Parts: sequence; structure tokens; C-alpha cells
Amino acid sequence: MNTLTLDVARTIVAAARDHGRRAGLKPLTVVVLDAGGHVVAAEREDGASNRRFDIAFGKAHGAISLGLGSRALMERAEQQPFFIAAVTSAVGGALVPVPGGVLVRSPEGALIGAVGITGDSSDNDEAAAVAAIEAAGLRAQPA
Amino acid sequence: MNTLTLDVARTIVAAARDHGRRAGLKPLTVVVLDAGGHVVAAEREDGASNRRFDIAFGKAHGAISLGLGSRALMERAEQQPFFIAAVTSAVGGALVPVPGGVLVRSPEGALIGAVGITGDSSDNDEAAAVAAIEAAGLRAQPA
Amino acid sequence: MNTLTLDVARTIVAAARDHGRRAGLKPLTVVVLDAGGHVVAAEREDGASNRRFDIAFGKAHGAISLGLGSRALMERAEQQPFFIAAVTSAVGGALVPVPGGVLVRSPEGALIGAVGITGDSSDNDEAAAVAAIEAAGLRAQPA
Amino acid sequence: MNTLTLDVARTIVAAARDHGRRAGLKPLTVVVLDAGGHVVAAEREDGASNRRFDIAFGKAHGAISLGLGSRALMERAEQQPFFIAAVTSAVGGALVPVPGGVLVRSPEGALIGAVGITGDSSDNDEAAAVAAIEAAGLRAQPA
Repeated sequence: MNTLTLDVARTIVAAARDHGRRAGLKPLTVVVLDAGGHVVAAEREDGASNRRFDIAFGKAHGAISLGLGSRALMERAEQQPFFIAAVTSAVGGALVPVPGGVLVRSPEGALIGAVGITGDSSDNDEAAAVAAIEAAGLRAQPA
Repeated sequence: MNTLTLDVARTIVAAARDHGRRAGLKPLTVVVLDAGGHVVAAEREDGASNRRFDIAFGKAHGAISLGLGSRALMERAEQQPFFIAAVTSAVGGALVPVPGGVLVRSPEGALIGAVGITGDSSDNDEAAAVAAIEAAGLRAQPA
Repeated sequence: MNTLTLDVARTIVAAARDHGRRAGLKPLTVVVLDAGGHVVAAEREDGASNRRFDIAFGKAHGAISLGLGSRALMERAEQQPFFIAAVTSAVGGALVPVPGGVLVRSPEGALIGAVGITGDSSDNDEAAAVAAIEAAGLRAQPA
Repeated sequence: MNTLTLDVARTIVAAARDHGRRAGLKPLTVVVLDAGGHVVAAEREDGASNRRFDIAFGKAHGAISLGLGSRALMERAEQQPFFIAAVTSAVGGALVPVPGGVLVRSPEGALIGAVGITGDSSDNDEAAAVAAIEAAGLRAQPA
């Protein structure tokens, strides 16, 4: 499988929400992008604040734009904040450099998309994304 | 009910896709916004082109921004294209003035959100949105 | 083949330029995008004006964003200029609705990218793109 | 020679990619701009992530905009991040202040363009740009 279909995206969204519920996380917003960085599916749970879609999108979009999980983008931001600020501008404004933007790879390793989650702590957001991607039988790259 | 919950949004997305399948429409992209104009749920069917999320969002966002279904925005665009161009800029760029952006009202008439659909003809996109909103037990306002 | 590799993109650029030379066209600018709408290769011939990259990019980007060759976008612009203006805004500003933005499909029909050409008449730009895509053993969709 | 022709740009792109291959670098994206800061040629190697064109462009565009290699822009960013942030905004958003944006000068010292490279470490990106410019018989200014 080399494309991230809507069925796969829906599986990931459902698994992430299920993870959040079982782990007692705050309301999550989950966005799934294809390899080109375009929205396939998104859900914002009741109680999540207004712009959570944009934050989840920014995590996933930053990751797929640079080919790195958003945890790696946070590390770079800590070292060279001006670089991440500049790249954010270069890619049009949607890049949120904290954990929770996780690359999705096929079992063979092909990059097929990215998941962005926001709502709880960044570490918990990332854990939900990783669990959801793996629940779909795919490989997660958080950094 | 005065808020558009994720459960309702998911019902609308599923009903719109079901309508499209039964009517033999091209792959649809469905976006559901709450009363604040913020994404609650979105799905892009396989085969829909890259930026269909943005177009569906623009239909719904234009509608909820002005309190009119996007069919009414088209009529205004035909009369005063400069007005719609100006408003598009004023609201940040996301306003697509063709049918398919439909306001969602509670049974009592309260404005609780908007649905945007793209993929087939604008008339068919709108029909899918109206059918989906009514399938959820709500009132649709296409113009 | 389901991805547009750099080798293929280079073949298309070279074939387009060769077509332009043999047909006596003005200096061409050729941009090749992948299925996600991202630049793979570009060349601007000597004598082409400053912003020709942006115009060629806009033709290809509009096409791949909507899944239609830019000739179809021109026809829509002639019928509903406000719609094309709105979509241009919705996709971030890069959409040039005249011929010369041509979708690239694999021999089996999968959408794998787009080519944008500018420099001569729009019809000649389109003819160069079609010839180049076919020279690479791929299928061209100009509308 | 006072202009950066397409033939020269193509020579630089090929030399940069050859340097990367021999040095074992990750997939590179190479963008060559003329003295006006406009794209002459670009290539993104297979495996490079989606938005690498924008990053390579930002390195070269920042350099030619200010008349300084992007290494000098990094030094300024370390001292006065607000200045680089402001200039990035002032020039339209495309300025990436890390090494890899290198000015191109004629043998006599005339400024004729800039090269931007991304994909490996910033230092390696810059080394590839310098090697490529010198391989074309021109002078490289990385800072």
C-alpha cells in the first residue's frame, strides 16, 4: 500500500480517539494528511477549543513538509528557533514544532502521510498518534 | 440542541457520503463547521483532488461567515463580484461562492454550523449537503 | 510507475524545451510538480521574464489542486470568474487559469503530477507540455 | 559574463548533485536564482521531502535579497533574531537563515545570482553549493 486511503485515515482517527478515551486524555483533535500534505480526514472532539484543527494540521503539515516527525522539529527549534520560524514562513505558516505530528509509513517504509494530534500534553498527543498508526498496521515515525 | 457536536458532524459526513454513493456522484469531500466557523469533522474520498478540503471549507466558511448559504453568495457574486472578492479577502481568503455551502439549523431554527461539499456539480454538492443535514434531523439552509 | 521521479521530470523539461526550439517558440519556462503539487524540476530559458516561474507554477498548481487541466479552469473562469478567483484564494494564490497546465498520468491512468509551461501563446504552451509528457511515455490531460 | 544563464544554472545543479552523490549526502534540492532573485533552475532529488524547494529557495532568496550568504544571515539571526524575523516578513516570507544559500559572482566579482541547497546538514549543503559554483568557473560567497 503506497497511498493513505480514506478508510485508513478513518481507522487512524478512530484508534486515536479510542486511545485518548482509554488513557483519560482531554478532548483530542486528530488530522490525517496524505503524502502530499493534504487533508484526508479530521475530527475535533467536543470540548476542544476553536482552533485545534489548525494546531493539529500544523503539527502534521510541518512533519510531512520536512520529512521529520514534529518532535525533531521541536529539537531543532530549541537549538535554532530562527530556523524553525523561517521554515514556518517558507511553507506558508502551518508548522507547529512540538510532539504530536507523526509520519506514517507503510510496512515497507514508504512515506504515505502524517497524523497531527492536539488536546492533551504534547507527549500524550504523540503517544495517541503512534498508537493509532500502529493500530492501522502501519509504521509511526515521531521524530 | 444548540451546538453541533462531533457525533452530529459524523452523522452528516456519513449521510453525505451515502447520498453521493447512491446518487452515483464523483468522489466527495465533506467539511462540517460549528457555529464559530471552526472545523469539527472532514473527510475526503479517494480520488478527490488535492485541495478539495480547502474548497469545501471555503464553501462552508463563506456561508457561516455571512449567515447565508453559498448559493446566495453566488447570486451576490453575479451581481457584485467586487463585493464577494472584497469579503473573501476580509474573512482571510476562505470563501467559495458557489452552491454546496449549506447552513445547519436546529429544529427550532438556531444557527449551529455549516456544511461544505465539493466534488460533483455545485448543484449536486448542495443536494448532498441538504440531504445529509436533514438525515441528521436538522434544518438545511442552502441560500 | 506511480510517482513522478526527478529523472522523469528532467525528461519532460528537456522534451518541452526541445519542442519549443523546433517549433520556434519564444523562451519557455517549464515547471514539473509531483502528485502532491510540489516542485520536482524547473527551468527558465534565457530571455524569459522575471516571474515566469511563478506563472508556470500557477498553471501546474491550479491543475493538480483541482484535478483538471488548466484549460478546463479557463473555461470555468469564463463562465464563473468569481469561482476561479475564490478558489485561487482558497489554494493560497497560485492558480493561473489559462492553457499550459497539464496533468500527468501514468500509462494506467494514475495521476502522478502536473506540468506548467509559459512563454509563448497559451495554446502553444499547452502543446509543448502535451508533447513533452507523451515523449516521456506518459499520458497528458490538458483539460 | 554578467548574467546567470540557464546553461550555467544547469551546470551548477548538475555539479551540486554530483558533489552530493560522491560525498554520500542525503537527497538534495538545488535552486538557482538570477541577480533579480528569480528562479532559473531547480531540481529536487527523489526522497527529498515535499517542501524542500521552498527551503532551498528561501536560502538563496534571503542571500540575494540582502547581498550576503545565508551563513551571515544565521550569524545575524543568532545576535538579533527579531531583525531576521522582520526582514523575512519584509521580503515576503522566503528567507531561511542557515548555511546553504550562497551568492554567485563572476570571475571579476560581479554579483550574478545565488544558489540554495537543502537536504543534508547545513554545512554540507553549503559545501555542495560552493563546490558547484566553483565547478562552473564562478566565485562562491557563502557568508
